[in-house]
Amino acid sequence: MGGYYGGRLAEAGHDVRFLVRRDYHAVTSAGLNVTSPDGDFLLTQPVVARDSAEIGPVDWVICALKSTSIHAAQKLVQPCVGTGTRILVLMNGLGLEDHFAGWFGSERVFGGLAFTCINRGKPGHVHHLAYGTVTLGHYRDDPAEIEQAINLWSGSKTSVAPATSLLKARWEKLCWNIPFSGLCVAGGGITTDRIMSDTGLSAASKVLMEEVISIGNADLSHHGEKVLIDRNTLVDSMFKKTSTMGAYRPSTMIDFVEGRGMEIEAIFGEPLRRAHALGVPAPVLALLTALLKSLNHGR
Amino acid sequence: MGGYYGGRLAEAGHDVRFLVRRDYHAVTSAGLNVTSPDGDFLLTQPVVARDSAEIGPVDWVICALKSTSIHAAQKLVQPCVGTGTRILVLMNGLGLEDHFAGWFGSERVFGGLAFTCINRGKPGHVHHLAYGTVTLGHYRDDPAEIEQAINLWSGSKTSVAPATSLLKARWEKLCWNIPFSGLCVAGGGITTDRIMSDTGLSAASKVLMEEVISIGNADLSHHGEKVLIDRNTLVDSMFKKTSTMGAYRPSTMIDFVEGRGMEIEAIFGEPLRRAHALGVPAPVLALLTALLKSLNHGR
Repeated sequence: MGGYYGGRLAEAGHDVRFLVRRDYHAVTSAGLNVTSPDGDFLLTQPVVARDSAEIGPVDWVICALKSTSIHAAQKLVQPCVGTGTRILVLMNGLGLEDHFAGWFGSERVFGGLAFTCINRGKPGHVHHLAYGTVTLGHYRDDPAEIEQAINLWSGSKTSVAPATSLLKARWEKLCWNIPFSGLCVAGGGITTDRIMSDTGLSAASKVLMEEVISIGNADLSHHGEKVLIDRNTLVDSMFKKTSTMGAYRPSTMIDFVEGRGMEIEAIFGEPLRRAHALGVPAPVLALLTALLKSLNHGR
Repeated sequence: MGGYYGGRLAEAGHDVRFLVRRDYHAVTSAGLNVTSPDGDFLLTQPVVARDSAEIGPVDWVICALKSTSIHAAQKLVQPCVGTGTRILVLMNGLGLEDHFAGWFGSERVFGGLAFTCINRGKPGHVHHLAYGTVTLGHYRDDPAEIEQAINLWSGSKTSVAPATSLLKARWEKLCWNIPFSGLCVAGGGITTDRIMSDTGLSAASKVLMEEVISIGNADLSHHGEKVLIDRNTLVDSMFKKTSTMGAYRPSTMIDFVEGRGMEIEAIFGEPLRRAHALGVPAPVLALLTALLKSLNHGR
């Protein structure tokens, strides 16, 4: 994720510093190689560092960690934060920006929701397979700050869209992610078309989506948000969108079938905790979350 | 199942004819070898047939097919049914006796609910690992007929218990089987102790059990049954029982981890269909059933 979106900014002429661990030697010797339906590119000599202290304070931090590493984020990001630094949390799940706001101050925290399909290839190689739009919101929903975030990507090949309410955007993404990623994993590592074509699974995904909308709207109200998720519009649009996606493999499903740890806490655990805290019934989400944690056991 | 329980009847001196397919050569050459905590035994020359026509009409048919083979049952049992023949359906799940009642007349149909752990060993070998009690009921709940079924096992090493209501006994077994077998499979092939020690899974198993009780009681009422399942007593006793079972592997979970087809329709699909037919909400059972069918796909 960081390689792709950082790469698009570098391609557009920005001075991008990459924090690279696993692929450091490959990238320093052969560059950062990206394949994409929006155009392949190769950064022959990207500026890379193995330690964020080597980078120092920057205008923008883009944090694209997997949410399972959230507790490593403060230490990794801290050296890059100066007075005017803004931080874009380009991660999956709910509540991650809360951590950054607590660590670095809420005024500088943004959330990015990437609807995309990006895989690591061999070291130094990134494969962007489909989609790619990033929805951008600000932790305090400050319109001037949202505009700053949108401007950052102007001139790049990344399509971006503003989110008037970051929390609402997070919940709307969960309305897709929880049923579809969840059932793709718990159904045994299946693709989204299997859910769409199976009566039982598509009915269950709808029930899950309804539960998520209820929790989301309770959480939005709790945070003083006035514009809530429109239940009917959202369910229909999610199913319509998914029916055009074919045999889509959500990232959590790819993690599952490839034996990696899955992002259960941020995508399923935190929404369920909010359901409990807000007193919203969520028996189906509770079952799914318990199963996913069991499947993630020991990873 | 048939090898074990038929073997116990033969051991007790009954004239038992075994319908044996896969293990025919092993059993004819080396006998039927059973290991059991209730005492090992070897039937050196059991009467075996490869085709039920070779057996012909008998006093009792014990049908211990896997419920996934229910549609083969009529043809297999038919040659053994004479005027006075009784049929004990020693299978897992709901509604199986309905088929036998339709094929052969309800007065001769009995249901057997085996609480046991029996595995096939190498050909001709059966391993009874634990438990073993069989609850016996009659399709019409005729007390005199139930007594006949109980008497059949007197003098054998099989412990039996009468069920005043066969349908209620079936539902009570499902109250255990649906949550525990279901979550052991969908949780990734885990043992029952993992459910008991995990907050999320044990809460989900309780929610499932509550749904099954509601469906069961609606179904019992629908069938004119006056004595319903006592919700509080049953939930407590099921959890207490399961907590003593240790790392138990339900048969459906063994099928799952060994790659065999699972008994989804009889244990999960039929109860869910009855929930729909009776208008009883069962969103958690619906999700679980859809996941299990997906995991069973192509087996």
